[in-house]
Amino acid sequence: MSKSYKTLKSRLREVAILQSTGALLSWDQETMMPPDAAGFRAEELSLIASLAHRRFTDPAVGDLIAACETDAVLISDAEVVANLREIRRDWDRATRLPAELVAEISETSSLALEVWRQARIDSDFAAFRPWLEKHLRLQLRKVECYGVPQGGEPYDALMEDYEPGMRAAEVERLFAPLRDAIAPLMAELIGSSHQPDPAPVKVKLPGDRQREFNRRVAEGIGYDFRAGRLDTSTHPFTEGVAPGDTRITTRYGEYQYVESVYSTLHEAGHGMYEQGLPKAELHGQPLSEAISLGIHESQSRMWENQVGRGRAFWTWALPIAREVFGAALGDHGVDDYYAAVNVVRPNLIRVESDEVTYNLHIMLRFDLERALVRGDLKVSDLPGAWNERIEKDLGLVVPDDRRGCLQDIHWSMGSIGYFPTYTLGNLYAGQLWETVTAEIPDLEESMARGEFDPLLAWLRDKLHRHGRRYSAPETCRRLTGRPLSHAALIRYLEAKLRPLYGTGP
Amino acid sequence: MSKSYKTLKSRLREVAILQSTGALLSWDQETMMPPDAAGFRAEELSLIASLAHRRFTDPAVGDLIAACETDAVLISDAEVVANLREIRRDWDRATRLPAELVAEISETSSLALEVWRQARIDSDFAAFRPWLEKHLRLQLRKVECYGVPQGGEPYDALMEDYEPGMRAAEVERLFAPLRDAIAPLMAELIGSSHQPDPAPVKVKLPGDRQREFNRRVAEGIGYDFRAGRLDTSTHPFTEGVAPGDTRITTRYGEYQYVESVYSTLHEAGHGMYEQGLPKAELHGQPLSEAISLGIHESQSRMWENQVGRGRAFWTWALPIAREVFGAALGDHGVDDYYAAVNVVRPNLIRVESDEVTYNLHIMLRFDLERALVRGDLKVSDLPGAWNERIEKDLGLVVPDDRRGCLQDIHWSMGSIGYFPTYTLGNLYAGQLWETVTAEIPDLEESMARGEFDPLLAWLRDKLHRHGRRYSAPETCRRLTGRPLSHAALIRYLEAKLRPLYGTGP
Repeated sequence: MSKSYKTLKSRLREVAILQSTGALLSWDQETMMPPDAAGFRAEELSLIASLAHRRFTDPAVGDLIAACETDAVLISDAEVVANLREIRRDWDRATRLPAELVAEISETSSLALEVWRQARIDSDFAAFRPWLEKHLRLQLRKVECYGVPQGGEPYDALMEDYEPGMRAAEVERLFAPLRDAIAPLMAELIGSSHQPDPAPVKVKLPGDRQREFNRRVAEGIGYDFRAGRLDTSTHPFTEGVAPGDTRITTRYGEYQYVESVYSTLHEAGHGMYEQGLPKAELHGQPLSEAISLGIHESQSRMWENQVGRGRAFWTWALPIAREVFGAALGDHGVDDYYAAVNVVRPNLIRVESDEVTYNLHIMLRFDLERALVRGDLKVSDLPGAWNERIEKDLGLVVPDDRRGCLQDIHWSMGSIGYFPTYTLGNLYAGQLWETVTAEIPDLEESMARGEFDPLLAWLRDKLHRHGRRYSAPETCRRLTGRPLSHAALIRYLEAKLRPLYGTGP
Repeated sequence: MSKSYKTLKSRLREVAILQSTGALLSWDQETMMPPDAAGFRAEELSLIASLAHRRFTDPAVGDLIAACETDAVLISDAEVVANLREIRRDWDRATRLPAELVAEISETSSLALEVWRQARIDSDFAAFRPWLEKHLRLQLRKVECYGVPQGGEPYDALMEDYEPGMRAAEVERLFAPLRDAIAPLMAELIGSSHQPDPAPVKVKLPGDRQREFNRRVAEGIGYDFRAGRLDTSTHPFTEGVAPGDTRITTRYGEYQYVESVYSTLHEAGHGMYEQGLPKAELHGQPLSEAISLGIHESQSRMWENQVGRGRAFWTWALPIAREVFGAALGDHGVDDYYAAVNVVRPNLIRVESDEVTYNLHIMLRFDLERALVRGDLKVSDLPGAWNERIEKDLGLVVPDDRRGCLQDIHWSMGSIGYFPTYTLGNLYAGQLWETVTAEIPDLEESMARGEFDPLLAWLRDKLHRHGRRYSAPETCRRLTGRPLSHAALIRYLEAKLRPLYGTGP
């Protein structure tokens, strides 16, 4: 093998080790760290991030990439070519960011996170505002460094960090017909005289039993605990810490055991994608990394919604729940559960929203972020704009910023351009699900018996093991035969929800 | 302030940040990490250790130290002089070690730790032997790099990492009269017709209640949970991760709740020393660091033994135990507890040993390590030598290496020269205790009411806040007025144990 390629891969591995260390610091910050350590943790994250950045952006790495790109033997191997294409992309982008900016963003994120936590508790947007303004300034500096893609807009440069190749105009093109289909569907369901009853799952259950049930569910669908953990955090997340080390979290509410289960399914979906990437051999190389956040989200959403809100899932899971919770669970049957977990009802909180209205939350965040980046909206006007839009789209009045524009963690971390990937994930999930259920006709029956292997094996084979070899649009076409659209998701939602609401077959 | 000194301190802080990151990786490895991550963690620890080493040993740091050492303003400040003296010591030692040796020791430790874990379970010394041989070779290379202190022996060079300034000959001089006092005391107590009953504390209690009790005990004596955690690990330890972040662990056995409490007291003692060091301002500087492992151990031992095995402690703690455990605890009184936790009986396992025989365990490890380093003992002959010595000193037959030379974690981490610090800690604790109880005459009464503040405040003021400003021997003389000896510990043991065994007043 080419000596340059070997050296390049070992340099990338060193960078990946530093990033793994940073990932552990972040995970620990959210789950384990004692409160007095917060200030210093910011310094640690910042130093590790800048060390990783400096090592990766070393001109010697650029020379190695260039040497590999002209090596005749290397470029006859399609896998290597894909790897080099993505390494080149990452290096070109990273070298555009000065180390001090990377460090400042990292440190600001750690500090702003703590401020946001308290501001959310206090519903005090004024406390958080200067931090969001600082984040926005830093993100605009990032846009300057990256440059705006040809024919695009500044927002595109930020989205590129999360959904490579996606453009705001394309998001708009996908979201517009989705909104046109969702708004009437929402009205149809809410207006129906037959409403599914959410009560069966609103039951008070002890925390330790909930943890046990979540663990059994995650294990049952294929999340590997030899290479993972399940902990508790305010905002559930997945951290692909290192090879053999993917950690997920969930949260618990006394009367919300089903929310906790869906949170677990969601993160386990992310977690299984991470666990399916070929990191053991290729850590640090794009071929062992996730394609995009949209594709990542398609995995979490599919396990949470297409699987977890299906009748088959509860056919398998309800007997386990009975075993774990005993009499406290009540005696509702599978159909009661199936109806209760598919209630569609506008909710102020994104992460508590149903499969239909969730996307309206994303669309409003996308529009507001885009306006902030364009300079059409000031940070100080954000709460007002938020509240107006929630009323218009969801018909709800926002009583305080805690349940309004302070609800999400993302902006406290400086993540702007991230939100659209959630609905893109829903669209990918809808389209992938249509394909996989056609290719594995007895999937429902298998899942009802607790056999999730066929689905996981399909995802492993078609998607996970390839890392970033194929781009998101390419992956979509390879797996489903079509470019991404809203149609499959809408077909899935209508087919499931209309019978439950008695508004269709 | 001198610009050189400012720059030097900021360089040291960067090194400390990397070390903090390494400390978190280690803590996580012992408490949280999923099993499949073990191999990669070794790589991470090794990279972080070598980055920290490289940054610290940078010749530019040496130049900064030299510049400060000749700065007239700086050297008129006694604190700065102490800080510089210790920085110089550390830098001189660190620059003697090549980065590749540091990395190899770190990586070997991580891997050997996993091997040792399994070897101990399997009682399979043969599996661990090559790793111990490798560690010994690496440690001998370290000796070569450090050089043997004048008039000393190779073992001294290793001990210097743990107990600066201590020499094997001095340890021998301290241990010999200690042994001469302990052997007859042990015989006297074991031979007495009156034996305290260990049964009162051998009670089966649920794990979650044990955790709750340990937490209340640790909190009660002054361990700060806003700046700390208490978790579970096979081998209990304390990790001073970072400013505001000191983590302790304990372990649980179904019938061993009192062992778990003592383990917690021990680690909380270490933890409170770490929490009392002025890290918030001085992280990375010797003035915020512990003096030596012997002094560290004096803190853990004092809280575990002088405090925790006293009548006052149980006068306070027993009502709390009753509250936490309820009827399952039984109805033994304070005196039953006081007797039960002071049983002296030779035990194969060091960490389960009483205050008297524990020191015999340390002496044998010291002698065997010294023989290994001198080349007088081969690693392959270690189990035999160990078993012989246990029989001679403690009158016990070692049934397998799991309960013999594989019982301790230290050698798997390449720590040779570490063990003597345990008994040195006992000696320091004995001598400090004699002083503090004379200086605070009503300490017993306070502790019986759950007031541990006077003791902690004394330790904070006299010891913790000074970091490494004074050496261990200097600290001993400053606080107790005398150089270290075995006498105070023996006086304390005889005064406590003879009445319990009916062999003296």
